[in-house]
Amino acid sequence: MDHHRALRKGFPEVVFGEGKTPEQIAAIAEELVRGSGRALGTRGSGEAFAAVQRRVPEAHYHETARVIEVRQRGRAETAVSGVVVAAAGTADLPVAEEAAVTARALGCEVGCLYDVGIAGLHRLLEHLETLRRARVIVAVAGMEGALPSLVAGLVAAPVIAVPTSVGYGTSYGGLTALLAMLNSCSPGVAVVNIDNGFGAGYLAALIARAGS
Amino acid sequence: MDHHRALRKGFPEVVFGEGKTPEQIAAIAEELVRGSGRALGTRGSGEAFAAVQRRVPEAHYHETARVIEVRQRGRAETAVSGVVVAAAGTADLPVAEEAAVTARALGCEVGCLYDVGIAGLHRLLEHLETLRRARVIVAVAGMEGALPSLVAGLVAAPVIAVPTSVGYGTSYGGLTALLAMLNSCSPGVAVVNIDNGFGAGYLAALIARAGS
Amino acid sequence: MDHHRALRKGFPEVVFGEGKTPEQIAAIAEELVRGSGRALGTRGSGEAFAAVQRRVPEAHYHETARVIEVRQRGRAETAVSGVVVAAAGTADLPVAEEAAVTARALGCEVGCLYDVGIAGLHRLLEHLETLRRARVIVAVAGMEGALPSLVAGLVAAPVIAVPTSVGYGTSYGGLTALLAMLNSCSPGVAVVNIDNGFGAGYLAALIARAGS
Amino acid sequence: MDHHRALRKGFPEVVFGEGKTPEQIAAIAEELVRGSGRALGTRGSGEAFAAVQRRVPEAHYHETARVIEVRQRGRAETAVSGVVVAAAGTADLPVAEEAAVTARALGCEVGCLYDVGIAGLHRLLEHLETLRRARVIVAVAGMEGALPSLVAGLVAAPVIAVPTSVGYGTSYGGLTALLAMLNSCSPGVAVVNIDNGFGAGYLAALIARAGS
Amino acid sequence: MDHHRALRKGFPEVVFGEGKTPEQIAAIAEELVRGSGRALGTRGSGEAFAAVQRRVPEAHYHETARVIEVRQRGRAETAVSGVVVAAAGTADLPVAEEAAVTARALGCEVGCLYDVGIAGLHRLLEHLETLRRARVIVAVAGMEGALPSLVAGLVAAPVIAVPTSVGYGTSYGGLTALLAMLNSCSPGVAVVNIDNGFGAGYLAALIARAGS
Amino acid sequence: MDHHRALRKGFPEVVFGEGKTPEQIAAIAEELVRGSGRALGTRGSGEAFAAVQRRVPEAHYHETARVIEVRQRGRAETAVSGVVVAAAGTADLPVAEEAAVTARALGCEVGCLYDVGIAGLHRLLEHLETLRRARVIVAVAGMEGALPSLVAGLVAAPVIAVPTSVGYGTSYGGLTALLAMLNSCSPGVAVVNIDNGFGAGYLAALIARAGS
Amino acid sequence: MDHHRALRKGFPEVVFGEGKTPEQIAAIAEELVRGSGRALGTRGSGEAFAAVQRRVPEAHYHETARVIEVRQRGRAETAVSGVVVAAAGTADLPVAEEAAVTARALGCEVGCLYDVGIAGLHRLLEHLETLRRARVIVAVAGMEGALPSLVAGLVAAPVIAVPTSVGYGTSYGGLTALLAMLNSCSPGVAVVNIDNGFGAGYLAALIARAGS
Amino acid sequence: MDHHRALRKGFPEVVFGEGKTPEQIAAIAEELVRGSGRALGTRGSGEAFAAVQRRVPEAHYHETARVIEVRQRGRAETAVSGVVVAAAGTADLPVAEEAAVTARALGCEVGCLYDVGIAGLHRLLEHLETLRRARVIVAVAGMEGALPSLVAGLVAAPVIAVPTSVGYGTSYGGLTALLAMLNSCSPGVAVVNIDNGFGAGYLAALIARAGS
Repeated sequence: MDHHRALRKGFPEVVFGEGKTPEQIAAIAEELVRGSGRALGTRGSGEAFAAVQRRVPEAHYHETARVIEVRQRGRAETAVSGVVVAAAGTADLPVAEEAAVTARALGCEVGCLYDVGIAGLHRLLEHLETLRRARVIVAVAGMEGALPSLVAGLVAAPVIAVPTSVGYGTSYGGLTALLAMLNSCSPGVAVVNIDNGFGAGYLAALIARAGS
Repeated sequence: MDHHRALRKGFPEVVFGEGKTPEQIAAIAEELVRGSGRALGTRGSGEAFAAVQRRVPEAHYHETARVIEVRQRGRAETAVSGVVVAAAGTADLPVAEEAAVTARALGCEVGCLYDVGIAGLHRLLEHLETLRRARVIVAVAGMEGALPSLVAGLVAAPVIAVPTSVGYGTSYGGLTALLAMLNSCSPGVAVVNIDNGFGAGYLAALIARAGS
Repeated sequence: MDHHRALRKGFPEVVFGEGKTPEQIAAIAEELVRGSGRALGTRGSGEAFAAVQRRVPEAHYHETARVIEVRQRGRAETAVSGVVVAAAGTADLPVAEEAAVTARALGCEVGCLYDVGIAGLHRLLEHLETLRRARVIVAVAGMEGALPSLVAGLVAAPVIAVPTSVGYGTSYGGLTALLAMLNSCSPGVAVVNIDNGFGAGYLAALIARAGS
Repeated sequence: MDHHRALRKGFPEVVFGEGKTPEQIAAIAEELVRGSGRALGTRGSGEAFAAVQRRVPEAHYHETARVIEVRQRGRAETAVSGVVVAAAGTADLPVAEEAAVTARALGCEVGCLYDVGIAGLHRLLEHLETLRRARVIVAVAGMEGALPSLVAGLVAAPVIAVPTSVGYGTSYGGLTALLAMLNSCSPGVAVVNIDNGFGAGYLAALIARAGS
Repeated sequence: MDHHRALRKGFPEVVFGEGKTPEQIAAIAEELVRGSGRALGTRGSGEAFAAVQRRVPEAHYHETARVIEVRQRGRAETAVSGVVVAAAGTADLPVAEEAAVTARALGCEVGCLYDVGIAGLHRLLEHLETLRRARVIVAVAGMEGALPSLVAGLVAAPVIAVPTSVGYGTSYGGLTALLAMLNSCSPGVAVVNIDNGFGAGYLAALIARAGS
Repeated sequence: MDHHRALRKGFPEVVFGEGKTPEQIAAIAEELVRGSGRALGTRGSGEAFAAVQRRVPEAHYHETARVIEVRQRGRAETAVSGVVVAAAGTADLPVAEEAAVTARALGCEVGCLYDVGIAGLHRLLEHLETLRRARVIVAVAGMEGALPSLVAGLVAAPVIAVPTSVGYGTSYGGLTALLAMLNSCSPGVAVVNIDNGFGAGYLAALIARAGS
Repeated sequence: MDHHRALRKGFPEVVFGEGKTPEQIAAIAEELVRGSGRALGTRGSGEAFAAVQRRVPEAHYHETARVIEVRQRGRAETAVSGVVVAAAGTADLPVAEEAAVTARALGCEVGCLYDVGIAGLHRLLEHLETLRRARVIVAVAGMEGALPSLVAGLVAAPVIAVPTSVGYGTSYGGLTALLAMLNSCSPGVAVVNIDNGFGAGYLAALIARAGS
Repeated sequence: MDHHRALRKGFPEVVFGEGKTPEQIAAIAEELVRGSGRALGTRGSGEAFAAVQRRVPEAHYHETARVIEVRQRGRAETAVSGVVVAAAGTADLPVAEEAAVTARALGCEVGCLYDVGIAGLHRLLEHLETLRRARVIVAVAGMEGALPSLVAGLVAAPVIAVPTSVGYGTSYGGLTALLAMLNSCSPGVAVVNIDNGFGAGYLAALIARAGS
């Protein structure tokens, strides 16, 4: 049985940074880069980035997304277009950016629509054409988590919903948004774990590439 | 300390029918009518209505709402206008009708907008003017429960949100809709218990009358 | 479609401070003030207030409520009367004050009744007349959350219930109070999110103004 | 180690009827009666009572409480006074009656106050003297479960709180009432399982007898 | 704003049958067929099918999937290939079939792999090539819900996970499988609501068509 | 209506320290002492005690129980005997001591049995006679919370069960122990909130005094 | 990769009957018997047994355990001794019997101790020697689920805990017992799913055979 | 009744370090060592180890497992073979090591297989022979918790599943993994509390010794 990772050609290998020390992240990143010239480190702090940079000077840090990226050798691959990331509020930005940075690292062109939550419907509707041209949409929201339903009711593309832990009281760390998204009355929506911007960006890239 | 019910003048007394036998409901309704000439029976089955009618022939049955109403003596009160009941899906109708029938029994004119859920946004927006003229709006929804947020983002009136037990799987009998409504990012929303159309209609009447 | 905010005339725009840095809050507040001469910042720390004050010297800080308020240009609007805020215990004061400050910022006169919880019933009953004169009541309580039921059984006005995260063990950060309030056996009660004093004050102002 | 049951002298032995067939209940009851001349069968249906009566003709059925009682040989014990059972609503009656019947079977005089819930405070206050004369109070309520807190704030006796499964939506089969009772801000309250009228009556008898 | 449904060209309109009477389903189906010559009815009982057939004789019933399908006018559209539906156990078949029938109704060729759960790993590995040739995979499982993780670790295609309510005790009607799927350590997985075979098939078709 | 507190003669008034500053606790304690010469402060830190002592030099600190006590004027009341506090593990001691100190402050003689949990049954059985002589028993346990059931099966006295937040993983901060205690198969048990040693001691004193 | 089932030599194959029709169970059982001469059908109703017997006349029905067993060809294997099944209450018998029947079908001698719950400790202690001679103990209990902790504190053998759905109110269908068992303060306990007597008996047989 | 600990001969006594100060742990450890020459301290920090070492210089610290071990007098017991500990991810190592260190301290030879989670199936299958030779397997996993099911489907030995709190969002501190493990569709699995490596190692040793 050959290895699964070989199947996902052109994708960087990934180190999930949460719960690891900067030194551990740096060591794993260095090893990944040595193998393929590329690496992606999610949930990486500034300290983690500094540690990586000491070993791999070409490393780049996406601060809002908290993603460390290394693309050592210049591969001129043609980017796949059609990924749109939409986020409800400004507090959802880190998760949305994690999705966008991930999809770009996997070879996609990504458009971003921020602050288009349900409380200000006119802002979302201003971007209707952008949404309808997308091949796949990542919709990111906390609190009542209504954005994916709203978007899926307006477009024909698949929608990947990402609940965020934004909110207080009965938002229960994103559980309310997650449940709302699972119960979307608009078909065409699937959901990833709370705050899992990486997973949504990864899946969006798989879908966009399948269609390219 | 004088009685609370005396304070809510012009309101019929209410018997909550769930868990009571038709005979019990009929006996209580008869007693209420004897006192004030009026009564409202919620969650009443067809059998309960038949039992009431045998004792109080003037009783009227609102079938979808499952409400039994008696208004024995003709009081020509001026109805208070400005209550709108909006419901997301057809399965939410019994709860929405319970709210509408209740508010009407408490002296309000009630407008109804049905099938205006988030998956078909254009249907809701067609009724924007009706919504904006309302003094108070009851917004009824199951599944992801997004309608109250959407409405509150479009109007300046208070919105009473009613989660319904419509849905399956992780809708958890209306809990998902309830949580979503409590986490509305649009201010101006408050929530009543799952399927509590009576409570929403009652509160809407209190608000509309306060403003009349 | 014209903007929603235009509909709520005379209301300041609001910045929700939780999870934002003092500098971010100050920048948003300054921009809001530039537009309308007014702003309200909720969940603002002392540091956030200092940062706002550096940019907007007229800013005022409601310390217990943790609300920053700017009312730059003196508009002599007539206040709407009839809002009462009742709180069960002293630990509920920050949430109660957030409700009161918010309703006042939205043009209401607000009366406050504190330490009137269910364990000392005589204290609540001493204020029965104040409660019965109210147009709308905000009832704030943690622990077993019984105050809104008790109040709604004594008055004819709508009651907005605010559960607080006050308690320990099975209070579950306000969930117990929230559930109790949703299950009130007194009609006329609706509920907002845990610790959401802002939302309750905002809704109370909408109701009081509708009735003015 | 001698047997525990010997310690609780004068108490009938008990068969818990739920999940047992009428024939099983009757067989166990007959055996208990043969031993001590007494037996108590809780959660017994009419069919169960009929089956018991065929074997033990002296059996008596408390229909609302669903308790089957046998007191074969006339023991003239002096009843212990001071137990009061208070119930919030009429739907709580079966549980309240189970508590009252149990405490009486264990040798107590029991006074009952029904329909004294928080929504009609004046009814409870009419019985203040009865409550204050009690040695131990069983307070039974569903929905928001506020009665025990209210009572414990008015008396000096211990209060045993019994949540009932009365309610709908977020009452969650009595869980809301249970949580509210555990979080009572009045000291002097302890709680038994949902709908456990038997357990409350049993404990009340233990307390009353300890004090006699 | 033009209608959303127009965007999803070639898709039949859908009536969700749960909670509707056979007569209601038949009436809606007839109306949909009159408009577009096509309709899909999910969660339809045998009685519902009989009622539809009386009005629309061309209706066809997918019994295991409980889906009623009408494709009145023969459109010779080219089917999109690449959808695979994999199910863990035989009890998951109705949900898996609902997904397969839905995707076929939306113009896809669908391959099915049944009884390939984690307890019999060799059966899954026998079909590795089929899985690796898929463009999108629907993975259906109840109980511990491990199948989607296992599949996503073996392929490069996006995986749509469908938890089913199969199990007992702590399976909690599919919640355990749902949570397990959301926490998949294999990237490339997104999840739909419990037992939502329709949603998974619909989304799979959107993805497959995007890539055709 | 005279005050409730007058009813509980001889009891000190209580300030619940959690969430209050040392200065707030000291101010309230001083005021209570000024009124009745006595006060009890629960959940008081060492800093809180120091602050109280500066204002009320007679204050005494029960360190393990975290209770501050003031008994200024020497009342020679006869102590009520018969309260026993039993605790399962050493980590349960602070809660058990809070119960014991509270009951003593309310005029009871209290015996303590520590480290008598279910895993070392012989230790509990060594104290069987002490348990059987008690008038009321407070049983304190975390983790699986089995001690109250075990004790209630061995004695004829009422048992007040106190779940503690001792444990990890699925102990869920005492919820598991609480649920186990509510489901005791031994009758004669009632439960207070998690870690509520004060409430258990207070109730034990009410019961013991009722029986004196 | 050779098949897993070949590894568990001498074990009958198993059909899990819940959710299958009698005809489906009979067909599967017949096929299993054809292969190996043996089969075990769990959660089988009387109707299922009748259906199996029509196809496989040698089938035997364990009624309380609801297990159908076929052992067609007489293999004289030596039984492994040392399995004891202990159950707390009579309502736990079906689950306990399922465990015992399963372990016997897998070649073990099984001793049974019933009605040895925590409320009647003396009954358990009478069987101490039997428990201490066991190689592995299955402890079955509902309600507060304390039996496994109690047993594990008395013996040196591994204890498999089986929570049952016996109870009411906050027993939550066995969840309370499950949580209590997971939090056992006695080491040497592991837990299976609620009501999973089959799984416990199977695991007990694996352990006993490993030690034979 | 002789003491339980005497029954588990050759086992060191254990102090559970969580929630105890270094000084408390050291004092208990010293006392245990004085009695039997051996002790095991779980959940011990580096500070706790330093405190123990000051009193018992022979103490040894297993850093990853956070276990302090003392084996003062050299007993040359023959180790029992056949325990294998398998862990899904590197973040599960502390719990896996706690299990391995515990089993070794109880006289077992333990083999360890790390980083063999479900997302990289080939790594697990490389170790198939090691797994199949085991007498008992401890399977440790967080996130979706699928490893025990996977392993139990491949071997004939009993599998002890240990959920870990590794994960984020809906992993709920290990609850998702726990539920998945309880619902394993492979028979032969039992589960211990979240992160309870000690309990798993202890039980594995009991099983392995029973079979030696």
